[in-house]
Amino acid sequence: MFDTAHHPHRRYNPLTGDWILVSPHRALRPWQGQQEAPEMDTRPAYDPACYLCPGNVRANGQQNPPYPGTYVFDNDFGALQPQGQGGGVNIGGLLRAEAETGLCRVICFSPRHDLTLPEMPVADIRAVVDVWVQEYLTLGARPDINHVQIFENKGAVMGCSNPHPHGQIWAQQTVPGEPAREGVQQAAYFAGHGRSLLTDYLALELKEGQRIVLENEHFVGLVPYWATWPFETLLLPRRHVASIEQLTAAEKDSFAAALQQLTIRYDNLFQISFPYSAGLHQRPTDGQEHPAWHLHLHFYPPLLRSATVRKFMVGYEMLGDPQRDITPEFSAEKLRSQPTTHYKTPAP
Amino acid sequence: MFDTAHHPHRRYNPLTGDWILVSPHRALRPWQGQQEAPEMDTRPAYDPACYLCPGNVRANGQQNPPYPGTYVFDNDFGALQPQGQGGGVNIGGLLRAEAETGLCRVICFSPRHDLTLPEMPVADIRAVVDVWVQEYLTLGARPDINHVQIFENKGAVMGCSNPHPHGQIWAQQTVPGEPAREGVQQAAYFAGHGRSLLTDYLALELKEGQRIVLENEHFVGLVPYWATWPFETLLLPRRHVASIEQLTAAEKDSFAAALQQLTIRYDNLFQISFPYSAGLHQRPTDGQEHPAWHLHLHFYPPLLRSATVRKFMVGYEMLGDPQRDITPEFSAEKLRSQPTTHYKTPAP
Ligand SMILES: O=P(O)(O)O[C@H]1O[C@H](CO)[C@@H](O)[C@H](O)[C@H]1O
Ligand SMILES: O=P(O)(O)O[C@H]1O[C@H](CO)[C@@H](O)[C@H](O)[C@H]1O
Repeated sequence: MFDTAHHPHRRYNPLTGDWILVSPHRALRPWQGQQEAPEMDTRPAYDPACYLCPGNVRANGQQNPPYPGTYVFDNDFGALQPQGQGGGVNIGGLLRAEAETGLCRVICFSPRHDLTLPEMPVADIRAVVDVWVQEYLTLGARPDINHVQIFENKGAVMGCSNPHPHGQIWAQQTVPGEPAREGVQQAAYFAGHGRSLLTDYLALELKEGQRIVLENEHFVGLVPYWATWPFETLLLPRRHVASIEQLTAAEKDSFAAALQQLTIRYDNLFQISFPYSAGLHQRPTDGQEHPAWHLHLHFYPPLLRSATVRKFMVGYEMLGDPQRDITPEFSAEKLRSQPTTHYKTPAP
Repeated sequence: MFDTAHHPHRRYNPLTGDWILVSPHRALRPWQGQQEAPEMDTRPAYDPACYLCPGNVRANGQQNPPYPGTYVFDNDFGALQPQGQGGGVNIGGLLRAEAETGLCRVICFSPRHDLTLPEMPVADIRAVVDVWVQEYLTLGARPDINHVQIFENKGAVMGCSNPHPHGQIWAQQTVPGEPAREGVQQAAYFAGHGRSLLTDYLALELKEGQRIVLENEHFVGLVPYWATWPFETLLLPRRHVASIEQLTAAEKDSFAAALQQLTIRYDNLFQISFPYSAGLHQRPTDGQEHPAWHLHLHFYPPLLRSATVRKFMVGYEMLGDPQRDITPEFSAEKLRSQPTTHYKTPAP
């Protein structure tokens, strides 16, 4: 009988409409390729050479204040700029360009250079959630900003150039492709069912149980049925809210606690500071209601077998479809069975 | 005035329907992040530890013949398997899986462990092209194979676990997402214009000139207007053919020569063995004619500024849209101005 734990198959991602190829039998393939350098694990609480530490001077000459909690500023080398020359190119429908404007922001999660989310107290993570709400509201209120992308790149292997705990926001005029696709899929589902796609999906997952990583009062973390990256997860509120500012105070506390719990499990998996890109998806800020949108947070971590062997999305994956070797069920089991205290916590 | 050389903008990819974000002003951003190890450049002509060298024994106990040219065999750890248990899963339209079958093949380009395509004589590259034709025809003729993906991962940074010059083929029942999208876009264009999308695109590019990297009698190599990777290129036949077996003998010679020329320029750019994933896109082998399809070869190289600094497609790119810093025009200029002999060629 067909069994997704053993037979090659494709899985459907209802959030984007894409498929991924799953090759469970391939997990035993020997690896003779590139080894990653594990993240450096010991850093000083303050690094005089870090351009994100409190009081230090950045490349453009500006000095960071002696901030005690979070600190947000405009990216000195933003990929988007607020004022722009409007216009475009269209030659035969084949050479097409359009001017784009926007704003890039940097959020320091903590003044402490040596911490990361899983090592921060829940109250301090809650302060990060509050900054996300604030930035989403302030940037989203601008008439020239229709989408606010909040994300974090963690670890050198994820292109992060500074280990000081921080995230980014790229806010812009146009809704990018990935959230646009998720918007279309969610709207179609909502139109057909009267409930959000992720409400129904979460109910199915809670019933099945095998892909759940953690649960608290208001949030659930799971490895989605269609996970592409080996240890990809989805963190979502039980209640259908379209964007982060709709969360109640109690839900924001739960969100912070779930963030801490999920990232602790990630760090414990290979006993390293676990690299990933993570980011919120929520409704565009174009002034429309978007009742179908259901807020969620994606985690895309690159590691596959150990602290030094990653999954490469190359060749077939770039030209055909994304592919994975271990099953989402296997990954969920691994993450679920991790201890809930951080491996660096000193024994009592 | 709006100028794509200076102002942030989005470009449209007519082959897929996607957009990418271009941030030309960001090229000057300092880089303090991960440095790649440049590819090892000196290898023996024969390596007793290499499982692809002639005469050596592979992990599964099989011995490679003492092959003098190319050598093709079934991947010992294929992501796809030919016999499979049919079936699927569909729970509420949200947990969906389908059995998938197929075949993975490995193609050694040369018996010489120390060579790569740019260092091989054109006649030997032509032999590789002939293997591609043969495999496309043989695999494509099977009733259970509707798509044949031919590709090469080159370099440890692209997940290639063995530097012996080789490529792969993943042939399968279903048409993967990326060629499916290209098929839809090409069919729509063909229906509207009566010519292939890439015929008209190539004519525009030849007129504009600034993104052309190389030309010969039958093939053109260029940096597409919508290039995502810093030095991404597209190699395509001047004549509209749907798949590789439709090329004439003269066109196949031109293809081999263009492959050599393009990869020589890549190696010369940073004076290293240049890493990339490359792959052919052509019509599905489902028995239909697909008159809109226009054969082409994509090169997706990861390097950005030097042999050790790559572009990371992370964070915003995973959650929003792909993004690039240098313009396609800048990259084309760099590649076009490279010498046409390989940097390792001894001075006469
Ligand atoms: O088949 P290989 O060379 O062992 O593996 C490489 O190419 C495959 C196809 O692109 C990828 O799935 C792997 O992640 C990559 O490491
Ligand atoms: O902005 P950073 O941290 O310098 O840069 C990193 O994140 C960006 C947004 O995901 C990417 O475009 C860069 O490739 C990556 O290196």
